[in-house]
Amino acid sequence: MNAHSIIAATVARLNHVGGVRQVFLVACGGSLVDMYPAKYFLDSEALTLRNGMYTANEFVYAAPASLSENSVVIVCSHGGNTPESVAAAELAQRRGATTIALTHNPQADLQRVADHNIIYAWGNDSSVADNPMAIILGLCVEILQQTEGYAHYAAFQRGVVQIDGVVVRARAQVAVRSVRFAERYQHESLFYILSSGASYGHAYGFAICSLMEMQWLNAAPIHSGEFFHGPFEVTDRETPFILMMNQGRTRALDERALSFLNQYADKVEVIDAKELGIATLPPEVVEYFNPVLFYSVMCEYRAALAQRREHPLETRRYMGQVIY
Amino acid sequence: MNAHSIIAATVARLNHVGGVRQVFLVACGGSLVDMYPAKYFLDSEALTLRNGMYTANEFVYAAPASLSENSVVIVCSHGGNTPESVAAAELAQRRGATTIALTHNPQADLQRVADHNIIYAWGNDSSVADNPMAIILGLCVEILQQTEGYAHYAAFQRGVVQIDGVVVRARAQVAVRSVRFAERYQHESLFYILSSGASYGHAYGFAICSLMEMQWLNAAPIHSGEFFHGPFEVTDRETPFILMMNQGRTRALDERALSFLNQYADKVEVIDAKELGIATLPPEVVEYFNPVLFYSVMCEYRAALAQRREHPLETRRYMGQVIY
Repeated sequence: MNAHSIIAATVARLNHVGGVRQVFLVACGGSLVDMYPAKYFLDSEALTLRNGMYTANEFVYAAPASLSENSVVIVCSHGGNTPESVAAAELAQRRGATTIALTHNPQADLQRVADHNIIYAWGNDSSVADNPMAIILGLCVEILQQTEGYAHYAAFQRGVVQIDGVVVRARAQVAVRSVRFAERYQHESLFYILSSGASYGHAYGFAICSLMEMQWLNAAPIHSGEFFHGPFEVTDRETPFILMMNQGRTRALDERALSFLNQYADKVEVIDAKELGIATLPPEVVEYFNPVLFYSVMCEYRAALAQRREHPLETRRYMGQVIY
Repeated sequence: MNAHSIIAATVARLNHVGGVRQVFLVACGGSLVDMYPAKYFLDSEALTLRNGMYTANEFVYAAPASLSENSVVIVCSHGGNTPESVAAAELAQRRGATTIALTHNPQADLQRVADHNIIYAWGNDSSVADNPMAIILGLCVEILQQTEGYAHYAAFQRGVVQIDGVVVRARAQVAVRSVRFAERYQHESLFYILSSGASYGHAYGFAICSLMEMQWLNAAPIHSGEFFHGPFEVTDRETPFILMMNQGRTRALDERALSFLNQYADKVEVIDAKELGIATLPPEVVEYFNPVLFYSVMCEYRAALAQRREHPLETRRYMGQVIY
C-alpha cells in the first residue's frame, strides 16, 4: 500500500469514531529527525488537526491524554527493534490508535505492533522520495488532504517528483567543496549547525547523528531565529558554524544569521538550498523540501569529514557495544 | 487582572466566534524558554486545544495557517521591545487573535499591541509564582480549565502555593555545592545539559542563556531520552555533563542517563528536583513545576560560575552592542 491508500483506509475506518484528530510522530535520534519536516508542515498548514512529535521514551512514560482511537501514530525505527519505539507503538495500539510503522528491516519487531507497515529504501542509490523523511512528510500531507483538504496538494506532488533530480545534481555540485570542507575543518572539535523552518530538525540531526554519534565531535544545533537571542555571544574567529540556508518563507532568518557570521566569524560553511537548485520547485511547497535536500547533501560532507579524519561513520563505542 | 480573569474575559469574548481553538506561545531566547513548560503541559493534558511554540521571527515569517480570531497568542519579552516579538504580536492582532503580552518593562512597545498586559516581577526577591515561567504556565492551565476543563486544576493551584517554599529551601541547599561546582568546572569550555519532560526547555535555556550568552561558553541541551540515540557517543572522562533530574513521569529517562553517565563519565553534576524537595507537591502536577525549581537553582550555579570565572553575567560583546 502506498501513502495515499494507507491514509484512505485509515480515514475511512476512523470516520466511524469521529475522524482523525491527532497525528503523533514518534521515534528516536535519526528517525525522529526524519519526522521534523512533517511536524513543521502540519504546524504550518493544518487548521484543526493536532500533532505532536516525541522522542519515543517520553511518549511511553508521559503519553498525551489525547492519545486515543482518533489518533494516528507514525513510528519510525531504521533497524526496527528500538525498544522504546516498539513500546511506543504498543502503547498506541492499547489506546486504540492507528499505528503506521516505518523501518528498513523487513524482520523488524516494530511490524508486530503496526496496523500499517512501510519498508523503506535506503542508501545513495535510492530515490529520496522513497526515504523515510519524504515518506513521513507524504503521509502527513495525505492525512491533511484527506481530512481538511490541502490547497497545495498538487504542487506538493510535483515537488516530490522534482526533488530527486535536484538532489542528484546538488550532490555532484558539492563533491569538491565537501572535500575542501573536510580538509579545512578536520582538526576542529566542535561545530554549531544553524538553520530554520522545516530544516531546523536536520540542524539537530546533523549535530547529534553525523557529528556526535558518527564522529564523536561536539556539536549543537541553533535555530537561525534564536541565534540572536543568546547563542551568538559565542561567535568568534575560531568557532566553526555550518549554516543551512532555506528557500522559502524563513530564508530571511538564515540570511540574517549569514550577515552576522560574515562580519564576526571566519569559519563559516554555507549550504544554500537556493544555490543548489531547489528554487525550481513550486514556491508554495518548496520550503518543506529543503531538509530532504540538506540531508542528502550533508551526507557528502560527513563522508568527506569521516574519510579525512580516518574515523569511519560506522564506528561506535557505546551504541550496540555496551548495555545501557 | 490576574490569569483567571484575563482568560475568563478572553473565553467569554471568543465564545461568540467559535471559542478558543489554538494557543500560540511566541518569544525569543530566554523568554521562549519560559514558555516550554506551558507547551509541555498543553501537549500532555489538552484533548482538543491545539498549541504551538515559536521563536518570534519564525512566527512572523512563517505564521501558521490556523492563526485566527480563535487563537490566543501569548508573547513574552523581558525588555518588551524585542522587534520580532512586537512584530509577532502585531501580526497576531491583524489576524484577529487575542494577544496577551508579558514583560518586565512598564514602558514596553509590546504593550501597544496586546489585548491584555502582564507586568511581571523579577529578581531573587520575587516569588517564583510571579515570574514569567509560572505565569505563562498558569495562563495555559486557565485556558484549559475554562475550555475543556482540567481534572487536576485544584492540585495545580496547590502546587503554585507550595513551589515558592521549595525554591527558597533548594537555593539554600545548593549554596555550597554551586560554589564547589564553579571551583571544579571553572576552566571547562563546553557543557552538555540533560533533562526531559517539562524541563527540557530549561536544559536548552541554561545552555543558550546562562552559558553561551552570559559566559561565552560552548553548550548544548540534550534530551535525556534522545541521549542514547546519538549524543552519548561523545561521552568520555573529560566532557562535563549537567543532568537536571525531574520528579514525575519522565524521571525514568533521567535515571537512565544518570546510570550511563555514572559508568562512562567523570564530570557529572546532578541537580535532582526530588532531592531538592519538590516531591511534596501533588503527584498529579509535580512534573510541571520541575523547571520552575531548576531555573531558580541553576541561577545559583551560574552566579557562582560567573564569580569564579570573573566573567560577570551581564557582559555582552554583540547583544545590544552592535547592529544585527
